[in-house]
Amino acid sequence: MSERITATYQLHTKADPERLAATIAGEQSSGTFVAIPGEDEALKARAAAHWHIEALPDMSSSLPSYRLTLSWPLANLGPSLTNVLATVAGNLYELRGVDALRLMDIELPSAFAEVYPGPAFGIEGTRKLIGIPKAPLIGTIIKPSVGLSAADTAALVEQLCAAGIDFIKDDELQADGPACPFDERLRLCMQVIRRHAEKTGHKVMYAFNLTGELDEMKRRHDKVLSEGGTAVMLSLNSVGMTGFNAFRRHAQLPIHAHRNGWGYVQAGWSYVAWQKLWRLAGVDHMHVNGIANKFQEADDSVIASARACLQPLFAHKPCIVMPVFSSGQTVMQAHPTWESLQSTDVIFLAGGGLFAHPGGIAAGVRALRQSWEAAMAGVSLQQAALSHRELREAVATFGPTA
Amino acid sequence: MSERITATYQLHTKADPERLAATIAGEQSSGTFVAIPGEDEALKARAAAHWHIEALPDMSSSLPSYRLTLSWPLANLGPSLTNVLATVAGNLYELRGVDALRLMDIELPSAFAEVYPGPAFGIEGTRKLIGIPKAPLIGTIIKPSVGLSAADTAALVEQLCAAGIDFIKDDELQADGPACPFDERLRLCMQVIRRHAEKTGHKVMYAFNLTGELDEMKRRHDKVLSEGGTAVMLSLNSVGMTGFNAFRRHAQLPIHAHRNGWGYVQAGWSYVAWQKLWRLAGVDHMHVNGIANKFQEADDSVIASARACLQPLFAHKPCIVMPVFSSGQTVMQAHPTWESLQSTDVIFLAGGGLFAHPGGIAAGVRALRQSWEAAMAGVSLQQAALSHRELREAVATFGPTA
Repeated sequence: MSERITATYQLHTKADPERLAATIAGEQSSGTFVAIPGEDEALKARAAAHWHIEALPDMSSSLPSYRLTLSWPLANLGPSLTNVLATVAGNLYELRGVDALRLMDIELPSAFAEVYPGPAFGIEGTRKLIGIPKAPLIGTIIKPSVGLSAADTAALVEQLCAAGIDFIKDDELQADGPACPFDERLRLCMQVIRRHAEKTGHKVMYAFNLTGELDEMKRRHDKVLSEGGTAVMLSLNSVGMTGFNAFRRHAQLPIHAHRNGWGYVQAGWSYVAWQKLWRLAGVDHMHVNGIANKFQEADDSVIASARACLQPLFAHKPCIVMPVFSSGQTVMQAHPTWESLQSTDVIFLAGGGLFAHPGGIAAGVRALRQSWEAAMAGVSLQQAALSHRELREAVATFGPTA
Repeated sequence: MSERITATYQLHTKADPERLAATIAGEQSSGTFVAIPGEDEALKARAAAHWHIEALPDMSSSLPSYRLTLSWPLANLGPSLTNVLATVAGNLYELRGVDALRLMDIELPSAFAEVYPGPAFGIEGTRKLIGIPKAPLIGTIIKPSVGLSAADTAALVEQLCAAGIDFIKDDELQADGPACPFDERLRLCMQVIRRHAEKTGHKVMYAFNLTGELDEMKRRHDKVLSEGGTAVMLSLNSVGMTGFNAFRRHAQLPIHAHRNGWGYVQAGWSYVAWQKLWRLAGVDHMHVNGIANKFQEADDSVIASARACLQPLFAHKPCIVMPVFSSGQTVMQAHPTWESLQSTDVIFLAGGGLFAHPGGIAAGVRALRQSWEAAMAGVSLQQAALSHRELREAVATFGPTA
């Protein structure tokens, strides 16, 4: 068991790398911009960050690239996820001489695993609640994201349940808007979901967006629970680490973690490093973007993020969470996702890629399931489309010739 | 009173600007990557974001630059600081076609001012607690940042009090490290501060770093209060908005807000936009970096940040906070800071710039005060140094010829 916290960075700089590494290590531990009397050798020996830097071949930048490794004694800060942020991702990005710096990975001593709970449900707990032991979970996001009333939302949920969806989530833009109040939306949607569950034996999982103030989040969580709901959603970058940890202690339902704001967070963080902290804090599902998404992220990066979610964090506390694929997902992405990931432990969310199906919502859900079944059976999309009408229509709508 | 939330962005793109603006507005309100049946004209009329885009002369980029303005009806999300984040700074930065996007400013309807408290102390309350009605507050950061025990820290505080410092803060790297436990540090430091206050009538303000879990933060706040402490510090990017708001409701002391992590947050946010949200949430002091800092930020940007903190947020609820200058600050920065800002309502923090004074801590504090007094009196640094030994030594140590 290492008693140091270790962080690895990608650093771009035109400056002298060893000197800059020493400066960064100093700033993030016992040093500052000038030598001061109090920073003696004994103090440095017990508190200074260690550093190691090596050149890195990097074709993506015209600037010299390095792998910088920093480590800190646990005694500097203790096993605190909130405080580790200032140490590994605080005042280092903008130091003079740093052209670009990104936290690529982080290793925490096992003392952290004793303090934080990790996911309470993870893959197994989520599958149990939905009643699907093996298949990928086909899900959707309420669309339009905003503008629907609570009753409109429930009417859409009715159609989605009838269509056989596994999972529904609020859009991150909708939490408790005056035009679609949380309590009313919850009540009306859960009426629909419970009625459907009584009929079919399967309860659709709806991740209600609780993002807000802590007391609201707790109260709404309790309401979701009492209405028979089976998941809640939080926007991690809005709630933040302290609020999340306080909520997690209260939570009795799977936590679906949205990463909106990732577009700026990624300036300083790789997803591989970032997801570790949130998994240990206790999320159950983590958004990883999707193949051929509507954003700029490359497919390789998306798959690396999903794989990271499925890698154990600690041997005795793996904290495995369910990766959530979303963003412009349609029947076109089942094959490449399956082929790259080789795992069905995914939540596959299609919003527009479901609602825009020309045959309607039921056809949209069927087409998505058909695409995954074909992928897992090793049948090409084209081949499967020949024998499945909904899939054929979806390919015509969302495929490259559409 | 506007019932819309308005955000202004700087956008760099090679794509068609009007089309991209419409896409961003759609993604952040009722649209998605394809047209869907539910997004009818009536829904768009009530929920869609409005957009306006205009070309912007920008010498700093080879890419075409635009000012993009988006606005949303308050009914979409309600007056929630936590939820406004997903709307103004959520899934828009990484959309295809966006080369760079930065939130430059935000205007909130006054409904927000009814929900959130703003600063409880601000400038006036802070000055009253310290007992300095007009002058800039001369402060320091405990250095070395980490590595000192609680007793070492108290010994340093003893020297700082004797030297006549106004304000002390923990480094953001030190909250409750096992090597310097919070409770012990608080107890020992407050013994010193109280003893000094009894002697002089002036109580030095020490912003103890509470950053951690919410229950810890509340408990520690109460301990600070019961020990006679007069301020607490939080790292905003570690705590997050939900945790902050929960803490703010509990707080009875000024909140000193640290911005570490700003190096990546700034990829998506201008400080002008960012500080508005935290001021409304209720911080009292906000870090703005400093002139000729150890980071890369230009002086103009630092001064714009400080000015922003001193601008009213709402006419009936100004939420003015005290800008905190820090990062490599020494006697060399008093003149340019004063000349640019023309306000003494600042906390001026020198860590290394105080402790590294060759005459020791008392000389360091005196030199800093001499530099500000000279600046405010219109006396040049060189002139003042002639008649003030501590200032002369500081200029020799920290000045350009050092």
